[in-house]
Amino acid sequence: MRFAMIIEYDGTDYSGWQRQKNGISVQQKIEEALEKLFIKKITIVGSGRTDKGVHAEGQVAHFDAETDLSEFKIKGSLNFFLPEDIKIREIKKVADDFHAQFDAKSKIYVFNTYISRVKSPLKSRYYVQIIPPLDIELMRESAKQIVGKHDFSSFSVKNGDTPSTTIRQISRIDIIEKGDTVIFEVEGPGFLYKMVRSIVGTLIWIGRGKLSPDCIERMFSSGDRALGGKTLAANGLVLKRVIYAEAPK
Amino acid sequence: MRFAMIIEYDGTDYSGWQRQKNGISVQQKIEEALEKLFIKKITIVGSGRTDKGVHAEGQVAHFDAETDLSEFKIKGSLNFFLPEDIKIREIKKVADDFHAQFDAKSKIYVFNTYISRVKSPLKSRYYVQIIPPLDIELMRESAKQIVGKHDFSSFSVKNGDTPSTTIRQISRIDIIEKGDTVIFEVEGPGFLYKMVRSIVGTLIWIGRGKLSPDCIERMFSSGDRALGGKTLAANGLVLKRVIYAEAPK
Repeated sequence: MRFAMIIEYDGTDYSGWQRQKNGISVQQKIEEALEKLFIKKITIVGSGRTDKGVHAEGQVAHFDAETDLSEFKIKGSLNFFLPEDIKIREIKKVADDFHAQFDAKSKIYVFNTYISRVKSPLKSRYYVQIIPPLDIELMRESAKQIVGKHDFSSFSVKNGDTPSTTIRQISRIDIIEKGDTVIFEVEGPGFLYKMVRSIVGTLIWIGRGKLSPDCIERMFSSGDRALGGKTLAANGLVLKRVIYAEAPK
Repeated sequence: MRFAMIIEYDGTDYSGWQRQKNGISVQQKIEEALEKLFIKKITIVGSGRTDKGVHAEGQVAHFDAETDLSEFKIKGSLNFFLPEDIKIREIKKVADDFHAQFDAKSKIYVFNTYISRVKSPLKSRYYVQIIPPLDIELMRESAKQIVGKHDFSSFSVKNGDTPSTTIRQISRIDIIEKGDTVIFEVEGPGFLYKMVRSIVGTLIWIGRGKLSPDCIERMFSSGDRALGGKTLAANGLVLKRVIYAEAPK
């Protein structure tokens, strides 16, 4: 039978979601916990990767296991075996053909920043500092140009894998102010490598007056990453939620 | 001339505010930075101690130094010498008789909690977990009994120093819900050792139904710490602000 789980993790000390030869991944830690519980190697399939240092509030993954244990018992046992910085928030039985990656309709990423001339010790783990002034309305206006379907090759960084297409769709960018923090919420069905961090970095350079808003149009038409703002640090990024047509919610 | 500064720190890796023989304190780190800047030993006086592992968003301290450097330059230099988990947010020249401890009118502490059956990796550094259910209205009602002037000996833990009186005044307890988090804001002119953590711990035990609200009256009259809830962990506590009649604000 197939199980899907919602996973929260602090990515600070991991090489990313995906299992790899060098460095410890979140996937590896969860597969080790599953092996301890079921005394058997079990592979999990995530909704997608998160990079080194990126966090998740709601990563989703599925796995197959034959067991009589209740969902409640499986969750409790896995959390007992998992380290403090990775926890299973929910686990439930799903249809045998549920697929955490292929069935994902949309993903919501959050990028956390704060505006200050001085680094904030209490924010440095989960937020990226922005030196003021920052024109938030100009960022909101510019974000409208990014929403929609575009060739996002200039809003990403090349890695080993070459995607079959660099056309992606962004359905929503919300920029939320709370005190001295500015939170970017970016939603879309799929993302290229480092795409959220490139989008938010470009918006912030526009908001700080270091780039003109028309750079976005030129980035789309030229495909030139060098025209955009810098790719922001991983510690500000959180995979907040993965949305499916049906469960898991 | 005398300077006052507002200091933010992540207390996780420190033995507390106050200089001591065993362990590294926040005070020691700031005094080391001052010595590097002024090539001279300088003692700082804080508004009060914070315990091992407690954080501060707005601790205040003063020190004396003869210098031609601007406040801006002093702040920048100290922050250059300080580690990432301690930063000076503001620094300004004050009257020669300003005293960070004796002139403090009031302090605001925040205690961060979240309600969940599963530990949250992204909250574990700054929040304490509470297992549901939690009756927030009952906690708010009970908090009214604590506000005011009382003998708080049963809401504190004895340490080496014996205070001349255990009468203290709490001017305000606000309990704020935000998503799955519950934030306690406690304000008063002065606090006994571990007093905020004892007050919040007792309120939470009442909210969880483990103690009856009338235990507060009995704690005040008997002075018996054992009647209250448990003293909560230090990582949830933040000294948010110290209030003075005049600057620094």
